[in-house]
Amino acid sequence: MAVNNTERRAQERTGRNAGASGLEHDRWPTSLTAIEPNKIQVRGYSLDEMMGRLGFAEAVYLLLMGELPTPTIGRMLNAVLISSIDHGVTPPSTLAARNVATSGAPLKDCVAAGILAFGPHHGGDIESCMRFLDRGLTLVRAGTSMKAAAETIVRECADQHEAPPGFGHRYHIRDPRAARLFQMALELEVEGEHVRLIRAAERALETTYKDRFDRPMPVNVDGAIAAISADLGFEYELGNAIFLISRLPGLIAHAHEERTRMPPMRQIDPKDHDYDGARNRRLPEGRK
Amino acid sequence: MAVNNTERRAQERTGRNAGASGLEHDRWPTSLTAIEPNKIQVRGYSLDEMMGRLGFAEAVYLLLMGELPTPTIGRMLNAVLISSIDHGVTPPSTLAARNVATSGAPLKDCVAAGILAFGPHHGGDIESCMRFLDRGLTLVRAGTSMKAAAETIVRECADQHEAPPGFGHRYHIRDPRAARLFQMALELEVEGEHVRLIRAAERALETTYKDRFDRPMPVNVDGAIAAISADLGFEYELGNAIFLISRLPGLIAHAHEERTRMPPMRQIDPKDHDYDGARNRRLPEGRK
Amino acid sequence: MAVNNTERRAQERTGRNAGASGLEHDRWPTSLTAIEPNKIQVRGYSLDEMMGRLGFAEAVYLLLMGELPTPTIGRMLNAVLISSIDHGVTPPSTLAARNVATSGAPLKDCVAAGILAFGPHHGGDIESCMRFLDRGLTLVRAGTSMKAAAETIVRECADQHEAPPGFGHRYHIRDPRAARLFQMALELEVEGEHVRLIRAAERALETTYKDRFDRPMPVNVDGAIAAISADLGFEYELGNAIFLISRLPGLIAHAHEERTRMPPMRQIDPKDHDYDGARNRRLPEGRK
Amino acid sequence: MAVNNTERRAQERTGRNAGASGLEHDRWPTSLTAIEPNKIQVRGYSLDEMMGRLGFAEAVYLLLMGELPTPTIGRMLNAVLISSIDHGVTPPSTLAARNVATSGAPLKDCVAAGILAFGPHHGGDIESCMRFLDRGLTLVRAGTSMKAAAETIVRECADQHEAPPGFGHRYHIRDPRAARLFQMALELEVEGEHVRLIRAAERALETTYKDRFDRPMPVNVDGAIAAISADLGFEYELGNAIFLISRLPGLIAHAHEERTRMPPMRQIDPKDHDYDGARNRRLPEGRK
Repeated sequence: MAVNNTERRAQERTGRNAGASGLEHDRWPTSLTAIEPNKIQVRGYSLDEMMGRLGFAEAVYLLLMGELPTPTIGRMLNAVLISSIDHGVTPPSTLAARNVATSGAPLKDCVAAGILAFGPHHGGDIESCMRFLDRGLTLVRAGTSMKAAAETIVRECADQHEAPPGFGHRYHIRDPRAARLFQMALELEVEGEHVRLIRAAERALETTYKDRFDRPMPVNVDGAIAAISADLGFEYELGNAIFLISRLPGLIAHAHEERTRMPPMRQIDPKDHDYDGARNRRLPEGRK
Repeated sequence: MAVNNTERRAQERTGRNAGASGLEHDRWPTSLTAIEPNKIQVRGYSLDEMMGRLGFAEAVYLLLMGELPTPTIGRMLNAVLISSIDHGVTPPSTLAARNVATSGAPLKDCVAAGILAFGPHHGGDIESCMRFLDRGLTLVRAGTSMKAAAETIVRECADQHEAPPGFGHRYHIRDPRAARLFQMALELEVEGEHVRLIRAAERALETTYKDRFDRPMPVNVDGAIAAISADLGFEYELGNAIFLISRLPGLIAHAHEERTRMPPMRQIDPKDHDYDGARNRRLPEGRK
Repeated sequence: MAVNNTERRAQERTGRNAGASGLEHDRWPTSLTAIEPNKIQVRGYSLDEMMGRLGFAEAVYLLLMGELPTPTIGRMLNAVLISSIDHGVTPPSTLAARNVATSGAPLKDCVAAGILAFGPHHGGDIESCMRFLDRGLTLVRAGTSMKAAAETIVRECADQHEAPPGFGHRYHIRDPRAARLFQMALELEVEGEHVRLIRAAERALETTYKDRFDRPMPVNVDGAIAAISADLGFEYELGNAIFLISRLPGLIAHAHEERTRMPPMRQIDPKDHDYDGARNRRLPEGRK
Repeated sequence: MAVNNTERRAQERTGRNAGASGLEHDRWPTSLTAIEPNKIQVRGYSLDEMMGRLGFAEAVYLLLMGELPTPTIGRMLNAVLISSIDHGVTPPSTLAARNVATSGAPLKDCVAAGILAFGPHHGGDIESCMRFLDRGLTLVRAGTSMKAAAETIVRECADQHEAPPGFGHRYHIRDPRAARLFQMALELEVEGEHVRLIRAAERALETTYKDRFDRPMPVNVDGAIAAISADLGFEYELGNAIFLISRLPGLIAHAHEERTRMPPMRQIDPKDHDYDGARNRRLPEGRK
């Protein structure tokens, strides 16, 4: 129905003729949160009971997936959400947020503009990678080996001279976020077929297809989030949502820094910046 | 400088004349995240070390405040972020997100539109309440008692026939989220003067000023978040940001439900909905 | 390159390594507007000369297409821009804007949210229809008759049980905006093959394919804008842009009415509204 | 009511208790556009009659103001809308739109982000200037001379070391757009007290207050739009809306240029650009 016309549909449901067509009495369903006086239940759990007993990441999983995560999945999701919390000033989403901030617009406007920059090349990469991996797993289910399936989907991209979604980061030769996510997935035993396939694809890119790209093609953080989110059972669209939740604090922090530390209406040059914050701190040993 | 003109400032810094004015060699600072090849540090801590050792809420605190929270503050912040994660279909932000979703727009567009509806009457209430409480604490620092200061700031609102920011919820006579947040602040011993003042203001509204409003005026969740965020040291603008982070998963969940469960281009009536999800579930005893 | 990774590309161009790769000295081109002290040229024409000598619609054409429109095309474009200037309160874009307005957000936030609701089912329909017509014209260039080509592309949609993009409006059996646009295109002699094809497709829908849809399928205003914009030489993406420019004043008017006439934080029911403005006025005879 | 709480108000109007409070039967008014089958009236005028007989700028005036403009006011408004149609790549709104475009996001997302950058320092200047002028006209109505009133409001800004809103453009010593707008207002005899006051304020800045600012302080285009919009009777908020309508095509043109001409995911440096389009063209003599 993607090509149908709004206003036609819209008008079907308006005033008089809505009454005529009885639509005024239709009711529509929602299964997320039930509100009664002095009582709020999210997916059937009392919100005030959740407070103090769940971590925010676990509550996010409950709201999006409909069930409580196991503590293990909760730990994995916390790590996934932290992995993309910020990546400095240069992502276009961060620059969009800062350009709105320099005009004096309120924080929420800066954040909204930043979110709009999560396009197919940025954030949207996660959904693309989930679909890329599922193409391979369809082959596996048809009897192809994981290795052969990985080589097939990598070759398809190479033949189109495209980097496979979720691979490659010229600045990072080895993306420390992806490496850590895979290590945790292994340790927490939540590694599934999507992670195994993306690792196989990474090996294919390091060997057979090494010469087909002009640079190393390690799995990047988007690829790692995509594979792990898929193994955890998130839908494609919610894979992008995980990145959105993860990066929101970064957008807020940059917009707030721009609004409070820089002069208004400046020209923001993405190159001419220096980091002047704390460096090389270690987490206290006892932590977690 | 609020009234200065954009393009003048913008043009000062462009092409040729920027070169002429030497601006091409200016550099600008950021203190949030340092990026080097294969190395990412957030506020000086290695991002991959944070993964698995911090909860997402703790990482949010680190990014926004610049320092690690104590485990106690981490627990408090998790509860604050959970408290506003969703409030059903009727908030204008949720309806804005659903109206964008029904047009077939991508998830991020729905979320951005929802965030734009965090106006002065919605979400922005938190900053207003933080400022309201600080007016009272200024009196306290000048020697007024907490009780008298609370009565003064409440009277100022009553005289303007305005509900004090962070008070009143006709649907909830006793907001279960606020009650739980105050209980936790007490138990975790993070309760500070902002919480004490808002409780004093609540008492003033239940007694002296009871007849000045047409309904009960308990502290609502915005007020509780405002008082606790202020006691935790968040700036006004970041108080609103806490609400923004908290509600984002709710916007995502509603936009996703609209996109996956409802027909496109429907007329969304905020009244004619029914909850058809799980009810009255209990968290497993062992949980946290 | 649709699947490549943001931050990799972003980082390629940052600080130090940008310097290393010489990118700091790259310059990038724009061909829209040249700014010099006391001198502004849009597409090579002095902006202050344009003021008073061009209509806004003609200036829009110049900026987007790079050349001045003929006075005839200017008249056609004025009619196209007026045709979708508003369609009452029920389009999702209007409801998104009003839901943001009721939160007390500034006018620009309401407008931005409304624009985000120009999804594939709303506004985006114009690009879909332009592509639909070009599929048919490809057949015509290959020797198929206009009539046969129209029947082919209509059948393709009917076989997928989809309304052809730009057709059908259950509320309007005959869209007065489309009819007027086609009449003007004929009178102004700007009617081209896209308009001829869409009229042929409309005839096919009224005859051969009448029974394939549950309602009349006249060309709607999106279809008329699509065909005329294509005949005027607008790119697909700019076809949607024409709708965006046309509807912006409608979004502004509804957001402003919501902000100035209605109580804040109301629940906006798309059905329960009544029109209470002026009715049945006639343009003065002398007008244009 | 600015400090009231959303969800309280929202909940008042929901499901059951809305029914209970009878709100389900409330109807709400709109006076913009009346929709009936095959009939659309904007402010009481048939939309299809308007097409071909009004220019788009005149239809905008009708929709926002409720009445047809005189042909003279229509000409003035066309010039106002053209005056800010684009100002090159450096305004923050344009950079926000381009940063969203480079992520591969759709055109409408780029435009929405650009609109969010119309903050208090950019676009919002128009409302500030309208209020600034009305402070002066209040003095005039109290018997102060135009000259003395202008000196008073200029001095108030100078004493706060702020540029008066609508004045100053370091890049343009004499803003050609403002000069042309004032010339037209004079010729078309729509010049009113707001224009006379802003000219008086400009003279005060050139003489008495010359030494109070570090650069010339001519009226800029925002100031000219503010004064003329106020003389035409637009409300403050609609003054900003005029700028929004005027600049939208510029945002579209830059987003489209970025999407079609530049590589994706580039770092956009506002300084390192060159204009490579047409130059120094003249409008045909016969034009208008």
